[in-house]
Amino acid sequence: MIFTVDRDVLLNQLIIIQRGLPAKTPLPILYAIKLEVFEDYLLLTSSNTDIAIQVMLDDPSLSIKQTGSIAIPGRYLIEIMRKITSQKVEFALIEDRLVVIKADRSEFKLRLMDVEDYPEVDFLDLEDSIVLDSQMVKTIIKETNFATAVSEKRPILTGVNFKYHDNHLYCVATDSYRLSQKNVKLRTHSKVFDIVIPNKSLEELNKILDGFSEDVELYINPNKVLLKMNKILFQTRLLEGTYPDTMRIIPQEFPVTIPFNKEELLSAVERVSLLSPRDRETNYNIIKLALRPDHVVEISSTNSEVGDALEEVIPSSDITGPVLKIAFSSRYLVEALKSFSSSEVILQFAGEVKPFVIKGSQDPDLLHLILPVRID
Amino acid sequence: MIFTVDRDVLLNQLIIIQRGLPAKTPLPILYAIKLEVFEDYLLLTSSNTDIAIQVMLDDPSLSIKQTGSIAIPGRYLIEIMRKITSQKVEFALIEDRLVVIKADRSEFKLRLMDVEDYPEVDFLDLEDSIVLDSQMVKTIIKETNFATAVSEKRPILTGVNFKYHDNHLYCVATDSYRLSQKNVKLRTHSKVFDIVIPNKSLEELNKILDGFSEDVELYINPNKVLLKMNKILFQTRLLEGTYPDTMRIIPQEFPVTIPFNKEELLSAVERVSLLSPRDRETNYNIIKLALRPDHVVEISSTNSEVGDALEEVIPSSDITGPVLKIAFSSRYLVEALKSFSSSEVILQFAGEVKPFVIKGSQDPDLLHLILPVRID
Repeated sequence: MIFTVDRDVLLNQLIIIQRGLPAKTPLPILYAIKLEVFEDYLLLTSSNTDIAIQVMLDDPSLSIKQTGSIAIPGRYLIEIMRKITSQKVEFALIEDRLVVIKADRSEFKLRLMDVEDYPEVDFLDLEDSIVLDSQMVKTIIKETNFATAVSEKRPILTGVNFKYHDNHLYCVATDSYRLSQKNVKLRTHSKVFDIVIPNKSLEELNKILDGFSEDVELYINPNKVLLKMNKILFQTRLLEGTYPDTMRIIPQEFPVTIPFNKEELLSAVERVSLLSPRDRETNYNIIKLALRPDHVVEISSTNSEVGDALEEVIPSSDITGPVLKIAFSSRYLVEALKSFSSSEVILQFAGEVKPFVIKGSQDPDLLHLILPVRID
Repeated sequence: MIFTVDRDVLLNQLIIIQRGLPAKTPLPILYAIKLEVFEDYLLLTSSNTDIAIQVMLDDPSLSIKQTGSIAIPGRYLIEIMRKITSQKVEFALIEDRLVVIKADRSEFKLRLMDVEDYPEVDFLDLEDSIVLDSQMVKTIIKETNFATAVSEKRPILTGVNFKYHDNHLYCVATDSYRLSQKNVKLRTHSKVFDIVIPNKSLEELNKILDGFSEDVELYINPNKVLLKMNKILFQTRLLEGTYPDTMRIIPQEFPVTIPFNKEELLSAVERVSLLSPRDRETNYNIIKLALRPDHVVEISSTNSEVGDALEEVIPSSDITGPVLKIAFSSRYLVEALKSFSSSEVILQFAGEVKPFVIKGSQDPDLLHLILPVRID
């Protein structure tokens, strides 16, 4: 196995592959990147219990003298490539388990793992793709993934539910205290599906999509999904189980509707949160929102040890409905507000002990819902 | 106690005062900032076991309606000021232990501590100052403080030794494995002194100096030093004990002298360190440096588990002396090199088991010394 390649080209691919390396694994071979050298391209593969990533590298700078396969320690390889400043690097297998990497006046001899030990990764067949706009996928992840559960108490809630029927993709995330729902119309048709992708997989996918603006092809089977981004394959396992029916907890009638300038509301909520006491269950700061008869909104917190905070926020246009007082975890509202691209948002209230809903004037297909907490 | 002031002006002073708040203290009153309101200025004070800071605020934006003194929770006050966006803020004491902070449509009521409990801070008298250039003080801290000991095994080594005689300031830091020495000529005369300032105090001082370019006045007594930076007083305790005589460990004869381009040497050392094994005592990576008969310098590391690294570095000009092989902790060399402003450095060797010295072509008053480790 002997080849040379541009250092920048290889490093860019390694940064993607790195997303698939496990942080900790009982299977040390997975700390390796599988590097397969064919006649005129390289395949790089990484995998862990959740995801597997494969990149094909066929850059013009690639010059292959001899084919072969190795399992090379991932983190070391990436660190070396980061620190190298030369334009070209050469890889040569000099012993059964020893590769030499040469770059200008630098020479690294890296001990290899046994490539035969590297587990076979079954990437799904590239049949029946659903074509997605990469910007849309990034937006969905940004708008929903933060609302998934962190705790493993109900594992199914640690993922985002993607449901497809009638040409529409319905995406839902909830940790049972708040919920995010996004609906999008797709360009291509597909069979009906209903899957739950782990939040960590979506985080890694999001980082890979950062440098990618073309279309994404999606392939689905009952246990996993594969996303093809040009020369990158990204496959993740799915969460098992039935995702709860969340439609029934979204109120249909909202007697009180209050429009806000998003940034004004956000900074008022952030300031009030500085002094607010923490909720025992979620460890988040509890704040109060009250609509006064003069149609000014008061956001406040009371903390017997530290002190009180009070903000007056003037709604950005007309309010409907009677006065109201509601309490909730400020972090839920902060995170929801931050996920909107709209500068104007509308808070819709069904009652003082019922979930309330946030919508954006420029985000018609996005809905956030927050459960209030009871206060005296 | 009632006053108004520009939010930006107050925040800038609070950011300085914050450096004196303790991270953790058995004396909760020290979590407070002492705020004294006089006829036409404010005094802000913070202190912990090592340092005390006092700032005088007499900005034109300050408007004082009523004088008084309070002890206000430091972190809360600073967080609130950071999050406020209005131009002006008003402080008013409304109860014995309750202050109201108003800013536009925000209102914070903060519970106070008893200002009578705040310990008296004895700042040194402003007599017999030594005038220092603030840039010079920053440079000395940058060039020496990193070489102090982290461990408390020999407490005296956790500070930088400043010795003054004959118009010169001699600054030394060592953790007993490496040493940094800087000599500067002072503009003003002073009595002879020999003090050790704790490294943490120098770190905080360095952060405060970041936004300061005028002269610094230095006042010294046997237990503490006070630095006056315009309207800021920064006082720190000194370390007790006698600083070791380090002159005798610096070799006087260097049979081998090798000049390097600093960046080239630094990046070669950093790359080789990626694979190098760790020293048991210091937990730092051990690398080897060898001068070959052809006057190329080899920097290398050997790691039976991971692999080997080898860099060839061409000295930047003529070498004196015979071939040589020496091993040491790469981090010491990396940190020493980074502290030089020179682009050319000279490594001077007294022998394979003797300390070696690093000097910079543009840093005539700076010397770094590193102890080698024995290898087979």
